Amino acid sequence: MRIDIITCIPEMFTGTVDQSILKRAADKGLAHIHVHNLRDYAINKHNQIDDYAFGGGAGMVLMIEPIDKCISELKAQRDYDEVIYMSPDGELLSQNISNELSLHNNIILLCGHYKGVDERVREYLVTREISIGDYVLTGGELAAAVVADSVIRLIPGVMNDETSALTDSFQDNLVAPPVYTRPAEYKGWKVPEVLTSGHTAKIEDWRFDQAVERTRMKRPDLLGKDSEV
Amino acid sequence: MRIDIITCIPEMFTGTVDQSILKRAADKGLAHIHVHNLRDYAINKHNQIDDYAFGGGAGMVLMIEPIDKCISELKAQRDYDEVIYMSPDGELLSQNISNELSLHNNIILLCGHYKGVDERVREYLVTREISIGDYVLTGGELAAAVVADSVIRLIPGVMNDETSALTDSFQDNLVAPPVYTRPAEYKGWKVPEVLTSGHTAKIEDWRFDQAVERTRMKRPDLLGKDSEV
Repeated sequence: MRIDIITCIPEMFTGTVDQSILKRAADKGLAHIHVHNLRDYAINKHNQIDDYAFGGGAGMVLMIEPIDKCISELKAQRDYDEVIYMSPDGELLSQNISNELSLHNNIILLCGHYKGVDERVREYLVTREISIGDYVLTGGELAAAVVADSVIRLIPGVMNDETSALTDSFQDNLVAPPVYTRPAEYKGWKVPEVLTSGHTAKIEDWRFDQAVERTRMKRPDLLGKDSEV
Repeated sequence: MRIDIITCIPEMFTGTVDQSILKRAADKGLAHIHVHNLRDYAINKHNQIDDYAFGGGAGMVLMIEPIDKCISELKAQRDYDEVIYMSPDGELLSQNISNELSLHNNIILLCGHYKGVDERVREYLVTREISIGDYVLTGGELAAAVVADSVIRLIPGVMNDETSALTDSFQDNLVAPPVYTRPAEYKGWKVPEVLTSGHTAKIEDWRFDQAVERTRMKRPDLLGKDSEV
């Protein structure tokens, strides 16, 4: 899989792309992230990529031309399954969408900044708009990093067995059961006895019960959901 | 405001903390992020901070002791309004929660990794659990960066006037209206005439209508919401 990220703050991806699961996926040749600096596609020698909004009001707007040039250059090199604009009013990211995106070969993630992008970018150049949640961020950069992380970890072979995605929250519409590790007692706080009992079947039952109970307490909305995968 | 982030991958914050709004907030003395490496609080000279889960199963679990030591050290230095664990089954982050957190003086964001933290951390050491959305990430690091960005940008003085948070999506339960910038025509795609008309009142009406219409199309759930702030 290949993810191309278009941004006016490429430095924001230093820590994420070079670390952790994204680095491991690249080292294994399973997924590559390419970060493109929008300023390399600026409309003039002043590196201009944004301008005031027509009609007035606070906030700069990213211009269509640099974005069009960058996307066109990428599309001339390969086919893309999706050109996704990270937007607070896009479709809400969910585990199902991440699962779906993880099956693609090539996607572009376009990061807005300031007041966002010229509306014509959304109308004519992107195929999909995704939001990571109902809150506003300074730009689409963190959102794109979140999408990349949630998608790439699902690609077979990226995670080791011991960090298998199959037992994660949301994959079966249940949140994960509680986990404990050593010491068995810390400051008088003890691990539930069943977990140190050695009875595998009892442990599995306990974990399932805990997952259901915890989902009922914390996220009852998930229990009513049909599997949408 | 001060945000302390506890993580086992401090490098993941390089790009976010050193760039953009978080850097600007620090330069202005309005908000400071301090990233703490959990390995500095390891239980032995092998830098151990995680171990296998009691009861078996895939995935390593972050131990309670290093986390307890780090949180205790921070608490000995100042009072914290919240100790927040970034968890996929926590309370869903919303603009209202970001608004609320932006009024605090000191918060701790604890990042899980692998299978998460020993449950006793959640039971005894944290005051709140927050999720940024219904999808699983490799760790809590990106989630913590998202919380920090969404909160810090709301602190008065952090953003310039031209990037004011008041006209953002969600602050009034409406998504933002479309924005356009130069050129007025690109590849035959034109800016709506009203925006270049110079009639301020008409422009304001058009923007409000567009915001309502777009909210109805994209996020009808927001229109039924009472303001929860």
